[in-house]
Amino acid sequence: MITVNEYFDGAVKSLGYENNGKSTVGVIDAGEYEFGTSTHETMIIVEGTMQVLLDGQTDWKNFNAGEKFEVDANSSFKVKVVGQVSYLCKYN
Amino acid sequence: MITVNEYFDGAVKSLGYENNGKSTVGVIDAGEYEFGTSTHETMIIVEGTMQVLLDGQTDWKNFNAGEKFEVDANSSFKVKVVGQVSYLCKYN
Repeated sequence: MITVNEYFDGAVKSLGYENNGKSTVGVIDAGEYEFGTSTHETMIIVEGTMQVLLDGQTDWKNFNAGEKFEVDANSSFKVKVVGQVSYLCKYN
Repeated sequence: MITVNEYFDGAVKSLGYENNGKSTVGVIDAGEYEFGTSTHETMIIVEGTMQVLLDGQTDWKNFNAGEKFEVDANSSFKVKVVGQVSYLCKYN
């Protein structure tokens, strides 16, 4: 089964599935968002560039297609994108 | 805007967006499918392994995460997957 998830009034959408653990592929519309985590997440950029501010950090970092960042469980991170960006998220 | 597309009774779902042209990220449930194209497509595997039979060919080929294949406009291709697989498709 493939689940369809929507956040921020549809400005972020993702498809949930299983492949060696829980995964989502998603798309983020241009804008700025804050996401919370309940488990450890690995975010891999599929297409586009994402600016990311991890919890407890003061500098935004750019991540391009193929690059990834890790987010601790029970944490949060902010994301800014100037165009639509797609990502793969692994939960583990 | 992010479009949500469903095919084969929901066994294939994708999210449509724009990033240097039209793109989709999608997920395919275990099974075998035949897709038709109206434009040239580049398919890039995001996670998992896809067996692919391109139009006019007789041998199935395996494509793993990060690998890609090209499909001509007004053509078709068959896909077999044994577990859920995610992909990026570029239309150009």
